[in-house]
Amino acid sequence: MIDPVVVLRQILGSKGWLSGADAEPYQRDWLNRYGVAPLGVARSATTAEVAAVVKACREAGLAVVPQGGNTSLCGGAVAEQPNAVIVSLARMAAIGEPDLDSGSIAVEAGAALAALHEALEPHGLMFPMHLGAEGSARIGGLIGTNAGGSQAFRYGMMQDLVLGLEVVTPEGEVWNGLRAVQKDNAGYQLRKLFCGAEGTLGIVTRAILRLYPTPRQQASALIVMPDFAAAVSFGAFLRGEASEFLTALEFFSDVGLQLALKHLPDLAYQLETRGDVYLLVELASSSQRVALDEILNSALEWGMEQGLVLDGALATSGAHRAQFWRLREEQPEGQRLEGEQLKHDISVPSGAIARFIEAGAKVCHDILPGVRINPFGHLGDGNIHYNLSPPEGRADFEAKAGQFAEALSSLATRMGGSFAAEHGLGRAKIALAERNRGSVERELMERLKSAFDPQGTMNPGVLLRSSQ
Amino acid sequence: MIDPVVVLRQILGSKGWLSGADAEPYQRDWLNRYGVAPLGVARSATTAEVAAVVKACREAGLAVVPQGGNTSLCGGAVAEQPNAVIVSLARMAAIGEPDLDSGSIAVEAGAALAALHEALEPHGLMFPMHLGAEGSARIGGLIGTNAGGSQAFRYGMMQDLVLGLEVVTPEGEVWNGLRAVQKDNAGYQLRKLFCGAEGTLGIVTRAILRLYPTPRQQASALIVMPDFAAAVSFGAFLRGEASEFLTALEFFSDVGLQLALKHLPDLAYQLETRGDVYLLVELASSSQRVALDEILNSALEWGMEQGLVLDGALATSGAHRAQFWRLREEQPEGQRLEGEQLKHDISVPSGAIARFIEAGAKVCHDILPGVRINPFGHLGDGNIHYNLSPPEGRADFEAKAGQFAEALSSLATRMGGSFAAEHGLGRAKIALAERNRGSVERELMERLKSAFDPQGTMNPGVLLRSSQ
Repeated sequence: MIDPVVVLRQILGSKGWLSGADAEPYQRDWLNRYGVAPLGVARSATTAEVAAVVKACREAGLAVVPQGGNTSLCGGAVAEQPNAVIVSLARMAAIGEPDLDSGSIAVEAGAALAALHEALEPHGLMFPMHLGAEGSARIGGLIGTNAGGSQAFRYGMMQDLVLGLEVVTPEGEVWNGLRAVQKDNAGYQLRKLFCGAEGTLGIVTRAILRLYPTPRQQASALIVMPDFAAAVSFGAFLRGEASEFLTALEFFSDVGLQLALKHLPDLAYQLETRGDVYLLVELASSSQRVALDEILNSALEWGMEQGLVLDGALATSGAHRAQFWRLREEQPEGQRLEGEQLKHDISVPSGAIARFIEAGAKVCHDILPGVRINPFGHLGDGNIHYNLSPPEGRADFEAKAGQFAEALSSLATRMGGSFAAEHGLGRAKIALAERNRGSVERELMERLKSAFDPQGTMNPGVLLRSSQ
Repeated sequence: MIDPVVVLRQILGSKGWLSGADAEPYQRDWLNRYGVAPLGVARSATTAEVAAVVKACREAGLAVVPQGGNTSLCGGAVAEQPNAVIVSLARMAAIGEPDLDSGSIAVEAGAALAALHEALEPHGLMFPMHLGAEGSARIGGLIGTNAGGSQAFRYGMMQDLVLGLEVVTPEGEVWNGLRAVQKDNAGYQLRKLFCGAEGTLGIVTRAILRLYPTPRQQASALIVMPDFAAAVSFGAFLRGEASEFLTALEFFSDVGLQLALKHLPDLAYQLETRGDVYLLVELASSSQRVALDEILNSALEWGMEQGLVLDGALATSGAHRAQFWRLREEQPEGQRLEGEQLKHDISVPSGAIARFIEAGAKVCHDILPGVRINPFGHLGDGNIHYNLSPPEGRADFEAKAGQFAEALSSLATRMGGSFAAEHGLGRAKIALAERNRGSVERELMERLKSAFDPQGTMNPGVLLRSSQ
């Protein structure tokens, strides 16, 4: 039998194959919890190379692990067995010319989200996805995890923004589904299925994405609220009153604000009042004829009259707006610098957020009295990044990780929500999925996997248990 | 062996099982092209009954054909073999109370779309899907065919509006996926996959749908344009200028207007000018502070200055607006009353509509000189209902149906579009799919089907060729 490394080197050339120390930067996941040394890293430059690599791995019985920016929070993009090849898409980062008349663009899977934003800037069009990792996260991984972010409630998740796809199947065939239309009902919605499949059904190599016109004006406000019930009521009011203008409805708590202000000395909070909850509201419009500031101000006034709003300020400049956003965006960093933490990615119906916060606190304090709860996220779609820090000085925190995850997942499930809202399952949440989702659902997923990847070599152990 | 009809009668009771003459109203499709007499019609009243029927049919080797409002334009909801049971969802038509805070509602699959609209009216929320058949089309069928309609470019197709589903699998198990959140990345996106699966992977019995706030004001205009190039340019301008307000961007042609005015004597066209193309533009806003009329008027003025608009009028009342819509909505009826016709459901990138119209006309006139082309549809997403009437007096029109379909499909495919935009494949377009889509794509679909329905008894012969 021919050494598969010889075959892979031949396909990829010397620049395209990394092993040993050169492969180390690809080995561990973002949170440094998963990943063993793979046989090597295939840095493919073309779809044909990806296909040839997948075929060669299949013949040699090697696992294939697709990797984009390696920003998965669930360990979805690293190997858990040494007889694996990581297929990095980093060299396939081309961004095409946008179709200005139709509002779409073709991109390679390795393009970073921020690079796409930048490429679109001169054209008056935007790709409406924004998330913390956008500087590193790549389009293929965003598709694989069906990314959401702060504008998902308005513009949709990745599955709503993908028009067409090119995918290398687990058998090394190339599916050309590079259509550029929203309406394509010619059979099963494969383009939607690959969104969120976490690279277990094939490797996304190119995509055609939907674009929107860049708004011509914006208004942003930072709003201080007494509690989550007020935030939910005010959010519902805004959805009725300013529905089509709402592009962000982000929240964070005073626990998180304290941590961020403590650890990031250059961070500034400039309002006079503090509250339990903060909202970052953003309106945008394509028309200069709309008085967004007035609409936002009058909503604030209404909120104050109703006792839902304690204080608030509209951004008066781009720099001011950036300050508001930094308060929201530094929430994970503030908590990381505080020390150990446990992350949970919950969603519940947006009207049920306050109920979840209340019930979740009870559940968590039953498990560990004094645990510090730092929920932040996206009010518009009910997505709560429900992160925990230990009571100060306590050491048996991580030992309770399973209990917290279990209790919070079960609570979200009972409320009609999800324990894996926008980060996916990866390797981290398979057991949770097995406990929170019925056997019919998991069985359908097993069948889907076997149908597309009968040998089980495509990203094994992610999303489902490995059958190898 | 027990007679399966005895078993089915036992499950359903006498009111739930129709056969012979009683089953006839369910037998033929909307366009009266498909359908043989089934063994009977199971009018299930509950999910448990649907599951029991599916199990009984499976044991007896009978095909199962789900049917909602039976408005498929592709023969997707009737039987093509006598050993089949039609499962009608018509009795499962319950509509729950909307969740006002979160914007969602639970409905049974048999609820008609218009009934859902009506039920929501008092609540200030809307389900943003509108299409000609909404009085008859039922939610289950709309999910099965991934319906689109006139607001899809703004609010999405059915797959974008489904939060959760309950589905009876081909093996008679019940999948409870009735989550009520947009963000749920806990594994493969089954909820999206069942949208557009045309009942071949299971029977949708209930759904949780996303709702939007009802706009508080609207502005509508009927606009006369010299040609399709002008319509495309004006549409692109509107998307930039009034992006978030646009809720309809419908078009029809003077060919269709002539037919409608000829056959529907009560129809009125009240502008002074005629053009080749007409646009029906609608803006809506949740805010009373926005001058929609001004925005629309100034766009019209710009269009006139640019020579893109020949004439136009804003609706001055609800009745006036309804007149505009009737001109658009009677397009299919006017053509039907003219006599025989051939329907095509095309999509191309919206910026390419004018190019498709020009190239399509050439192709069609090459096949049959003098053929009358009546394109109408949805400018915003490039969806063209490209319908043909024969040259007056010609008889060999229908014989050329295959040639027209082939040529137009191939043209749409080459332009990055689809030959099955929003009506699905049903039984009518399987051959077209085989010719226009690569073998990898059809093979993945075959595998999906086999994985979910190994015996091939769920709506056989729809979407894929029957394996029975």
